[in-house]
Amino acid sequence: MEFSEWYSEILEKAEIYDVRYPIKGCGVYLPYGFKIRRYAFEIIRKLLDETGHDETLFPMLIPEDLLAKEGEHIKGFEDEVYWVTHGGKTPLDVKLALRPTSETPIYHMMKLWVKVHTDLPIKLYQIVNTFRYETKHTRPLIRLREIMTFKEAHTAHATKEEAEEQVKEAIEVYKKFFDALGIPYLISKRPEWDKFPGAEYTMAFDTIFPDGRTMQIGTVHNLGQNFAKTFEIIFETPDGGKDYAYQTCYGISDRVIASIIAIHGDEKGLSLPPIVAPIQVVIVPLIFKGKEEIVMNKAKEIYNLLKDKFRVHLDDRDIRPGRKFNDWELKGVPLRIEIGPKDIENGKITLFRRDIEEKFQIGDNEELIDEMEKTLNTINENMKNRAWEKFDAFIKIVEFNESKIDEIKNILSEERGVILIPYVESIYNEELEDKVEASVLGITEYKGDKYIAIARTY
Amino acid sequence: MEFSEWYSEILEKAEIYDVRYPIKGCGVYLPYGFKIRRYAFEIIRKLLDETGHDETLFPMLIPEDLLAKEGEHIKGFEDEVYWVTHGGKTPLDVKLALRPTSETPIYHMMKLWVKVHTDLPIKLYQIVNTFRYETKHTRPLIRLREIMTFKEAHTAHATKEEAEEQVKEAIEVYKKFFDALGIPYLISKRPEWDKFPGAEYTMAFDTIFPDGRTMQIGTVHNLGQNFAKTFEIIFETPDGGKDYAYQTCYGISDRVIASIIAIHGDEKGLSLPPIVAPIQVVIVPLIFKGKEEIVMNKAKEIYNLLKDKFRVHLDDRDIRPGRKFNDWELKGVPLRIEIGPKDIENGKITLFRRDIEEKFQIGDNEELIDEMEKTLNTINENMKNRAWEKFDAFIKIVEFNESKIDEIKNILSEERGVILIPYVESIYNEELEDKVEASVLGITEYKGDKYIAIARTY
Repeated sequence: MEFSEWYSEILEKAEIYDVRYPIKGCGVYLPYGFKIRRYAFEIIRKLLDETGHDETLFPMLIPEDLLAKEGEHIKGFEDEVYWVTHGGKTPLDVKLALRPTSETPIYHMMKLWVKVHTDLPIKLYQIVNTFRYETKHTRPLIRLREIMTFKEAHTAHATKEEAEEQVKEAIEVYKKFFDALGIPYLISKRPEWDKFPGAEYTMAFDTIFPDGRTMQIGTVHNLGQNFAKTFEIIFETPDGGKDYAYQTCYGISDRVIASIIAIHGDEKGLSLPPIVAPIQVVIVPLIFKGKEEIVMNKAKEIYNLLKDKFRVHLDDRDIRPGRKFNDWELKGVPLRIEIGPKDIENGKITLFRRDIEEKFQIGDNEELIDEMEKTLNTINENMKNRAWEKFDAFIKIVEFNESKIDEIKNILSEERGVILIPYVESIYNEELEDKVEASVLGITEYKGDKYIAIARTY
Repeated sequence: MEFSEWYSEILEKAEIYDVRYPIKGCGVYLPYGFKIRRYAFEIIRKLLDETGHDETLFPMLIPEDLLAKEGEHIKGFEDEVYWVTHGGKTPLDVKLALRPTSETPIYHMMKLWVKVHTDLPIKLYQIVNTFRYETKHTRPLIRLREIMTFKEAHTAHATKEEAEEQVKEAIEVYKKFFDALGIPYLISKRPEWDKFPGAEYTMAFDTIFPDGRTMQIGTVHNLGQNFAKTFEIIFETPDGGKDYAYQTCYGISDRVIASIIAIHGDEKGLSLPPIVAPIQVVIVPLIFKGKEEIVMNKAKEIYNLLKDKFRVHLDDRDIRPGRKFNDWELKGVPLRIEIGPKDIENGKITLFRRDIEEKFQIGDNEELIDEMEKTLNTINENMKNRAWEKFDAFIKIVEFNESKIDEIKNILSEERGVILIPYVESIYNEELEDKVEASVLGITEYKGDKYIAIARTY
């Protein structure tokens, strides 16, 4: 089955996201999908809190004059901004934009908060909805008109060096985040022609989807003093002078949820890393005639034993176990416990790992909780490693010269993935994109060497 | 100081919410305020999860024809809806509303999900931003154009009785929520002329602010089959017939944050119930010359002892302790630990309770954590009781007859609060509002008797 078809089907069948809302590019996070989102964003929230970021909430509406203040920035967004023009039947004096991103509202406020170098650094983030009037083909959780989940962080610093350090910290935070989710990534410095509108430079995380196309899943921007100059974020330096703040910003969106689904899933459906699985362990009692009570009692006993430690569900529906197995495999539950009369007699419990689709037995004793915990950690780890193996297999190093262009185009249209060209300054320009009929992701380091990364992107 | 002045000042000084955003009725949740919001909404989230509600996320934009589908509902909102008319420079084919509330998007989807009685009940909630083009005077966190935090729940049931039970469950959930926050409330059945547009009836929670005016802080609506008929939420009954779903919905907004501030605060500033305090315990070392190290070491030792169990902050700023005391009292930190050389010698620790403004000593020993936990619980409990005492003092029972109208008007314009009139059917109508120059909250039970509740409202 083709990936995009598989992806649409899984969103529906696993009850992640319902696309049937009557606005293109807008949909509904269903309960199961919402829980994946909740657990995923709890991880990034914790990482940001631990590194001294403060969570905040800024207005969703931006007055036209505020949004238009930074010239390059507005140019990057103006064709994609939704405009509110009326309140009730009254035309508004000033048009209001639905935030496409929050630099302008946040930096307008930062000006009020920053007076002297001791007010810095400021490290804020918020998790909000943002809007783009996409004219391209939309895709659920990948290219939306309402991005339902946008984690954006914004920082201001007293020196260029500190802002530089902040970019590094943000990259470390995102690495930890994607590692926790088992999502592999390539980090590139985006080319000049593809950086964030208004930034000095942009560092980006790309992963590779099963169809070989790359997906941008996170970006970190060094804004230099560009926005600070426009928004007059001025502070008194230790020696009594004045300077503009040095800023960075970085974001993660619903695409991370799309990536969890796409990277780990298989022909049987979702396969969720335990860290974000709404149900980590499902208990399926194997009912045999005459043994109903003994089996159900054991199932409940195990459920009660595990329920405070794991996200566990006891499936006591009156349907065949085989159907239950399929349901929970489709929904990606990482670990299944089967409880039948024979196992009970032998003091054993049968486990099934979704990631490797293998059964094994453990003793039904006081070490059960530890065993489960170990197994769930192993699954997280194994899923990550397997994802990186697939990812690395998608990466090909090709020396660039004119005679290689057909080979490169061939790879990019057949197997796709990422092609790494050993870095040569003279070829690093926008024309390269036309030549190879693909996008330049930017400059990247791979196993210690410097490359130009090229790919077909989402 | 007048309440509204106190309120504005405290939002600014305690760094809760910044009103200086350039759109009327829109502002910024600052880090400290955001944390109060986070802890408060964690409580309601837990209560809803425990009672079988599923968290979801629906689109913010609503097509005009969808919003207009339910006649009464749209009439209730049409003057207050913000309209998106353009995407980039392109006029949209269909105007899009910023959700004022989400009945229409949610019930449109419910129609797709409900086929047969076993699909019911559905109990959903979401915590989102909503919008009202308020023409009235706006007030931070009380009357906003962007309601930054709206927890809305929506349910559908197979029978009228189940919907009735759901209303009761919602009321119980809200009682527990407000009890946890120490916010007193009167529950009224709103009069016909003031119910939610499209509902059968509305149950409302009102609290009383220090200025004696009431504040609606939560509502629970029984929607009957009104919306189900409009949105065609039809299911097959157990006997093979067809019926429309019976629905309820209920909401809580940023007003709960305003209430925490207003109800518990005093002339020294905020006073936060430990359950939502961003900092539950602040440690202030009392530095004396020559004893710096011994005091700081002890302070750090206590900090390390407490930090995994409580939200604790060690204030090691190089300023006088008196200023630190003021800062943290202003910010409403419920418990302060003072550590000085004398206490260290005596094996004691001095605590200060923000709620009663009293100091006391406890032994610096292994029972410290238990003592702290007990004290924080006592503070929660005491703050709740004190708030209820103030609340009850605001409630006056007055028998109604024409000769009493001046007395009632007097009370309502001087002391304000709530006047309870023993229920008489013949006077229960909209004209009563004109007579007493106040709002009819509705019919309420107070200490076992039935009353008409009247008040000046926010």
